[in-house]
Amino acid sequence: MPQTENQEVLEQLSGALASGAFAQIRALLQELHPADTAQLLESIPPDQRISVWSEVPVEKMGEVLTEVSDGVREGLLEIMDTQMLASAVRSLDVDDIADLAPDLPDDVIADILFTVDKEERPAYDAVLSYPEDSAGGLMNIDTTEIRATITLATVSRYLRLKGGLPEYTDKLFVVDRDNRLRGILFVSTLLTNDQSLRVARFMDNDPIKFTIDTPSTEVATAFERYNLISAPVVDDDDRLIGRITVDDVIDVIRESADHAVMVRAGVSEEEDIFAPVYQTARARALWLGVNLITAVIASWVIGQFEHTIEKLVAVAVLMPIVASMGGNAGTQTLTIVIRGLAIGTITKSNAFRVLRKEFLVGGLNGLIWALAVALVATLWYHDLFLGVIIALAMFINLIASAAAGVLLPLACKRFGIDPALASGVALTTVTDVIGFLSVLGLAALFLV
Amino acid sequence: MPQTENQEVLEQLSGALASGAFAQIRALLQELHPADTAQLLESIPPDQRISVWSEVPVEKMGEVLTEVSDGVREGLLEIMDTQMLASAVRSLDVDDIADLAPDLPDDVIADILFTVDKEERPAYDAVLSYPEDSAGGLMNIDTTEIRATITLATVSRYLRLKGGLPEYTDKLFVVDRDNRLRGILFVSTLLTNDQSLRVARFMDNDPIKFTIDTPSTEVATAFERYNLISAPVVDDDDRLIGRITVDDVIDVIRESADHAVMVRAGVSEEEDIFAPVYQTARARALWLGVNLITAVIASWVIGQFEHTIEKLVAVAVLMPIVASMGGNAGTQTLTIVIRGLAIGTITKSNAFRVLRKEFLVGGLNGLIWALAVALVATLWYHDLFLGVIIALAMFINLIASAAAGVLLPLACKRFGIDPALASGVALTTVTDVIGFLSVLGLAALFLV
Repeated sequence: MPQTENQEVLEQLSGALASGAFAQIRALLQELHPADTAQLLESIPPDQRISVWSEVPVEKMGEVLTEVSDGVREGLLEIMDTQMLASAVRSLDVDDIADLAPDLPDDVIADILFTVDKEERPAYDAVLSYPEDSAGGLMNIDTTEIRATITLATVSRYLRLKGGLPEYTDKLFVVDRDNRLRGILFVSTLLTNDQSLRVARFMDNDPIKFTIDTPSTEVATAFERYNLISAPVVDDDDRLIGRITVDDVIDVIRESADHAVMVRAGVSEEEDIFAPVYQTARARALWLGVNLITAVIASWVIGQFEHTIEKLVAVAVLMPIVASMGGNAGTQTLTIVIRGLAIGTITKSNAFRVLRKEFLVGGLNGLIWALAVALVATLWYHDLFLGVIIALAMFINLIASAAAGVLLPLACKRFGIDPALASGVALTTVTDVIGFLSVLGLAALFLV
Repeated sequence: MPQTENQEVLEQLSGALASGAFAQIRALLQELHPADTAQLLESIPPDQRISVWSEVPVEKMGEVLTEVSDGVREGLLEIMDTQMLASAVRSLDVDDIADLAPDLPDDVIADILFTVDKEERPAYDAVLSYPEDSAGGLMNIDTTEIRATITLATVSRYLRLKGGLPEYTDKLFVVDRDNRLRGILFVSTLLTNDQSLRVARFMDNDPIKFTIDTPSTEVATAFERYNLISAPVVDDDDRLIGRITVDDVIDVIRESADHAVMVRAGVSEEEDIFAPVYQTARARALWLGVNLITAVIASWVIGQFEHTIEKLVAVAVLMPIVASMGGNAGTQTLTIVIRGLAIGTITKSNAFRVLRKEFLVGGLNGLIWALAVALVATLWYHDLFLGVIIALAMFINLIASAAAGVLLPLACKRFGIDPALASGVALTTVTDVIGFLSVLGLAALFLV
């Protein structure tokens, strides 16, 4: 139901944009959730973005900025002056400001720090300095601390005095005099137990916690695995410095999933669908350049067998089948291995078993498809011997593709390269080269 | 920190498994979180799984079963008898039982329903009958209901009487006499306000809610967008029938992200890395068969130009470069478009603009790489005219690949086919065919 509602508002907005009804646009934007406004901005071209953006209420601008992709954000930041930016960003949580910080001019950050309470400033300074992909960069500083020795009634009174709780407060942090984390008290425990008893009796003394340098992917795995809503972040002396909440973790999960898909295709997950043509072309050109080099290598291999092709044109006709099947079978293996490495089911200790299994799968599928392609080739050219050669080449290439599918991502990981980025290109180079080489090599040896 | 701890336990377990130290294995499994046990089971071969599984405490088995992939789960279910299965599954939440239900024997489900409280049985029956990928299948029935007319103090007393709250209870559901949803009360509001005031004063009258048939992807989008921890599910008469919690939504997000990566490579996200070889080979064979057909089509195109190749072998050497570049450029466009369709930034109303932009990007990159490949061809064969022909073919193929990258996913979506599944294969068929056709056709026309 919520999505359908959005779709309607978005369509009304498109209509209003087309007819230039700015009063209506302003009214609609007033209603719209920042995440929906972000989606709207991403789905319209840059010139319309400027008109829409100027109608977005300033108090919503900060949140919209955190929701849009990097590419779109840059364009929006460009058309805002320092003062407007500072007032849009100031109201955000410090973890969101930290996300935006790399894109903000220094004077905006200075302006924001200037207006923060003196006692909070060191915390702000610290959060802004942590890398975005660490627990420090993900965390917020809106922790609610209590002591172990007080009663639940006192905690309840304290919370009523505060008058509100930050979003995602499912637990309170029990700290000692030196702000060291001693445990956590679940809000549900507070709500459902005898108010005259003390916190110490109910608190969990060994909660899951993170240090500022825990990588954000590890934080995400822990949240997913242990079903967390919030978790404390401590420094090296176990002092509580912030907390991470599930909404930011969901963003990490979504972004890393997006990244995994996009990086394999040689595009950025932050690409703005309406970025200027030259900018998009440039961003994608590097990937195509790398591919050109690998394609030329494969062609060079073919070039070594010109004599064979001249004598027997059929091999030139059939060789792309062998290369293509190797690429596809190898990609299947590769995808399974990259995922296994990412979620941790494939490790050093079982990698050899995986390799052995994929070899056998490659061999079995190699046999089946070798027979199929042999049939095709024999029927096509009425030449059984040609069919046998193509079949042999297919078998060789599917075995090789299994090996490449397992070993290339392991090698990437070993050398600290993202397997999703590099091993796809490397794999198709291997399967093309071995595919062409085996068809043409065998043909040169036995047919011409 | 949490991941490192796991890694250690997992390594200790591997050691214990290798040496057959079952007492140690039992002790380690007693400690291990079900999600970690699931990961362990996935990363060891099937024969070892049986020995480890028999040492897992029965009270943890149910949760482990919900965490492992389908492939691994099947193997585990096979070695459990009805009684053991029923006692493992009985303690789970009904939404988790619903997830497992398709894999459970009928007598196990009958056994579980038999032991459920009479008044809860209709709710169980209902949840078990909803499709897994709908709000009905995702929801649990552990809602906490209150009335609008009572005071916060009464709510607090009621909760203490209950003695506990279900996990992820960030809000209570305000219902009327007929169980119709009137609003929600946040637990944090309850905690931080004057206890003598009534619920009606604080409740949110228009909460985000789902009906049983809301698709789970829409539920996930809403949770992500509006930062929810839990949300009510209502029937057509607005009667409260359950709630969805963020942990299950994270699973949906992760699974659909996994699915998107895996389906494009022609593998299943549920593939067990240690499934029997013939089973894996069979599962992957269909994809390879489809690819063989497309590869044969591309070859058939080449076959129409045997005469040209005989006369000018160079075209057989260079044509894979043009096909491969088209495939890569097209995949870039395709990936951007599939994602835009999935997150909703590409719609009917802006599809034409996207097409126009991708055409321009394809044209620009076509120009650049046409020049590059012309240079390669001319230097290689000392034949400028050959270089011009290859360059022209490259330009044509990159323009075609841009069109195919935009139009194929749109067409898939139009006909209700998952764009991630079908459009990759279709794209490379198009770029191979047009790549070969343009190189060979132009060569036939102008060179031989």
